[in-house]
Amino acid sequence: MMSTATAIQERSLLGLKHLSREDILAILDRASYWEQQSEKLVPILNKKFAVNMFFENSTRTRFSFEMAQKRLGVQVMNFTAAASSVEKGESIYDTVRTLESMGVDAGVVRLKPSGVLQELAQRVRIPLINAGDGNNEHPTQALLDLYTMRKVFGELQGLTVSIIGDIKHSRVARSNLWALQKLGAKVQFCAPSVMSAPELAEHAPYVSMEEALKADVVMMLRVQLERHSGGLFQSSEEYREQYGLTEERAASLLGHTIIMHPAPVNRNVEIDDAVVECDRSYIFRQMAHGVPVRMAVMERAMRD
Amino acid sequence: MMSTATAIQERSLLGLKHLSREDILAILDRASYWEQQSEKLVPILNKKFAVNMFFENSTRTRFSFEMAQKRLGVQVMNFTAAASSVEKGESIYDTVRTLESMGVDAGVVRLKPSGVLQELAQRVRIPLINAGDGNNEHPTQALLDLYTMRKVFGELQGLTVSIIGDIKHSRVARSNLWALQKLGAKVQFCAPSVMSAPELAEHAPYVSMEEALKADVVMMLRVQLERHSGGLFQSSEEYREQYGLTEERAASLLGHTIIMHPAPVNRNVEIDDAVVECDRSYIFRQMAHGVPVRMAVMERAMRD
Amino acid sequence: MMSTATAIQERSLLGLKHLSREDILAILDRASYWEQQSEKLVPILNKKFAVNMFFENSTRTRFSFEMAQKRLGVQVMNFTAAASSVEKGESIYDTVRTLESMGVDAGVVRLKPSGVLQELAQRVRIPLINAGDGNNEHPTQALLDLYTMRKVFGELQGLTVSIIGDIKHSRVARSNLWALQKLGAKVQFCAPSVMSAPELAEHAPYVSMEEALKADVVMMLRVQLERHSGGLFQSSEEYREQYGLTEERAASLLGHTIIMHPAPVNRNVEIDDAVVECDRSYIFRQMAHGVPVRMAVMERAMRD
Repeated sequence: MMSTATAIQERSLLGLKHLSREDILAILDRASYWEQQSEKLVPILNKKFAVNMFFENSTRTRFSFEMAQKRLGVQVMNFTAAASSVEKGESIYDTVRTLESMGVDAGVVRLKPSGVLQELAQRVRIPLINAGDGNNEHPTQALLDLYTMRKVFGELQGLTVSIIGDIKHSRVARSNLWALQKLGAKVQFCAPSVMSAPELAEHAPYVSMEEALKADVVMMLRVQLERHSGGLFQSSEEYREQYGLTEERAASLLGHTIIMHPAPVNRNVEIDDAVVECDRSYIFRQMAHGVPVRMAVMERAMRD
Repeated sequence: MMSTATAIQERSLLGLKHLSREDILAILDRASYWEQQSEKLVPILNKKFAVNMFFENSTRTRFSFEMAQKRLGVQVMNFTAAASSVEKGESIYDTVRTLESMGVDAGVVRLKPSGVLQELAQRVRIPLINAGDGNNEHPTQALLDLYTMRKVFGELQGLTVSIIGDIKHSRVARSNLWALQKLGAKVQFCAPSVMSAPELAEHAPYVSMEEALKADVVMMLRVQLERHSGGLFQSSEEYREQYGLTEERAASLLGHTIIMHPAPVNRNVEIDDAVVECDRSYIFRQMAHGVPVRMAVMERAMRD
Repeated sequence: MMSTATAIQERSLLGLKHLSREDILAILDRASYWEQQSEKLVPILNKKFAVNMFFENSTRTRFSFEMAQKRLGVQVMNFTAAASSVEKGESIYDTVRTLESMGVDAGVVRLKPSGVLQELAQRVRIPLINAGDGNNEHPTQALLDLYTMRKVFGELQGLTVSIIGDIKHSRVARSNLWALQKLGAKVQFCAPSVMSAPELAEHAPYVSMEEALKADVVMMLRVQLERHSGGLFQSSEEYREQYGLTEERAASLLGHTIIMHPAPVNRNVEIDDAVVECDRSYIFRQMAHGVPVRMAVMERAMRD
């Protein structure tokens, strides 16, 4: 049983903006422990119940959490909004309170609207894990990105990370920005004006594509051109030409530069098909790291 | 292996109308045992398989059953109609028979049409648990309501319970009616004429709102005004004024009266927002009680 | 960890056309072992993770796999396309690669388009089990059909099996054809011309309904008349008259002939209601056999 509201909030993971450097490093270190575990099933949380509440569709994030939970022996319940009484107009708050009443120990939540999660977490008494809230934050994605970079480069201090694409709608960009800066990395953005987030300009510079490609890490974001219908680009081909990581651009990267992407990928739009699985692409390794990172996050939320 | 049709039907829970007083009390007593269990996981049924078949959407009821099942170690499989071949026109009977053939030990079923479940249960050879069948019965909801009342008042004998709102469409009202009367409580209804169920008038009186509020238990029902489009009310505000448990009305209740609602709640329609979480509201405690009640019901259905 | 691509492919089950006689018999023998197991839960694979990926709706096949997996203690994750980011245009290949990256040990896949699965299996490094791919193959269904026939008749060598109905769209017909012939049974088809698959005529003869009924096994296929809208039949009644297994036709079968159907059944279209549950119908027994057959298939895919 959780004792205080503070204790519960310390077990939640709502975002990286307000998480301390030490907390972030502690999660990464614990993820490293889990990655090195040779046993796939370590049921230390087999008396704990978690619910994955996805009010927005997801394959990879939901499965990554479920895999992490099940490796720890957690009793897992899933729902997606489409199959629930949220359709009947029940508020998200009431849904979470219901699950809390039933004795669930933690909730993993993905929500479409930005900013709702923070308020929700203050009103319930179980730890909540942010699995993506609108355009705000996606902390476990950024943690697995950091984990990947740290594994490749040894430390994050001093790295230059370019985040390229639809910054405006990207919770991944925001979570990475906050966390990377705390850990001493330099973040720069590259985006067409229609996809820029002006409010982030005071935190990280916007640079040209040419400049962006000279970084230690080139992180491509998924673009959803349909969100910009009145916008700059006539076609996905036009986007690719200006902002895509084409084979040509990938060949021009510095020898040590690694390529990342939070996935799912639009092949041949923001990144060329051949680049997705080239040696310096860490896209699938990022996904692999998601499991130990989320094990660390779930353990932090639920251990006694 | 079940031996006889009778033995199977004794493990089913189709409704409370035909369940004996002793059977109801036995379930409540066993629920009390489970509520007092300090261990969250007591896997006494870990070799049993249950399927939750929801042919109508649900969040709370499905999760409550799943939580109950998993606390007992039951192997749980879920489906909702939308994701199944019921879409292909397969009959519900064939679906249940299929699961029976596969060796499933019990089925929890929610159905839209009233009365189908009874016939279904006679044709299959596994116990079925009613998780809501049309406007007919919702026995586990009523059992958790009874459990809550008994916990507050010590016994049900002599209590007056007012059920207020859309009696016509309410399986919760019906299940509570049958069970409360068996256990010596007095039930009264309060509903606008368009939401009355005339066939129940011989079992319980319809009273005014003023009279209804003078009970030991005030149970508000969810209204779905869209079902009554040609009806009495211009708006949900008008319904609230006439039949809602407003803050003012809640303040006028007797000192010992408790407020209940099967949820999900339409805040500020049948019950005011502030009333939902006031001290005398047992709404979230009802949900908490749902888990031990359903543990008792699942154990009854599947124990050797 | 799988060592070579060959080793992985030997654990996959993509179809029966290219599976050896010995491999088929080994699966049937192991299924027999599992059917005779008195313990329902034998968690020999409790450190293995399987994902059931149904890009096409299913109730019975998905549950049969899930039951088989859970009886072996497998950690199971499910998804149906509708609730996943496949909607966002993510390719099936990327979905499977994602799951592979996360450490999933095997995938059970149902796909609408024919032939995609084979290519998919060559590009990923986990065993894949075909749970139905378009009109191509449905190997576990045919294996449970073979298992059922072998159990009834002792051996498959020399049996005559008539497959009646929509051969053209039937993956069940194809998988049965390839496997039955390998095991020495004679297959014959019966179908209206619009439902014939001319490319199969070189492998098995098309015979009249009268002739088809004189077999050891009469396997009826589900018809979907809406697929043949411009076609031969005015109504399902007309189809029934010409190609349905009516009560009259069922009564005319040889004394030892058994009736099979992969289900779900269109009662009173391809098979009469009363015939579905008559003594010589093995429809529900087929379903029961699906579980041990799939246990054998999952064990083959995932055991160390």
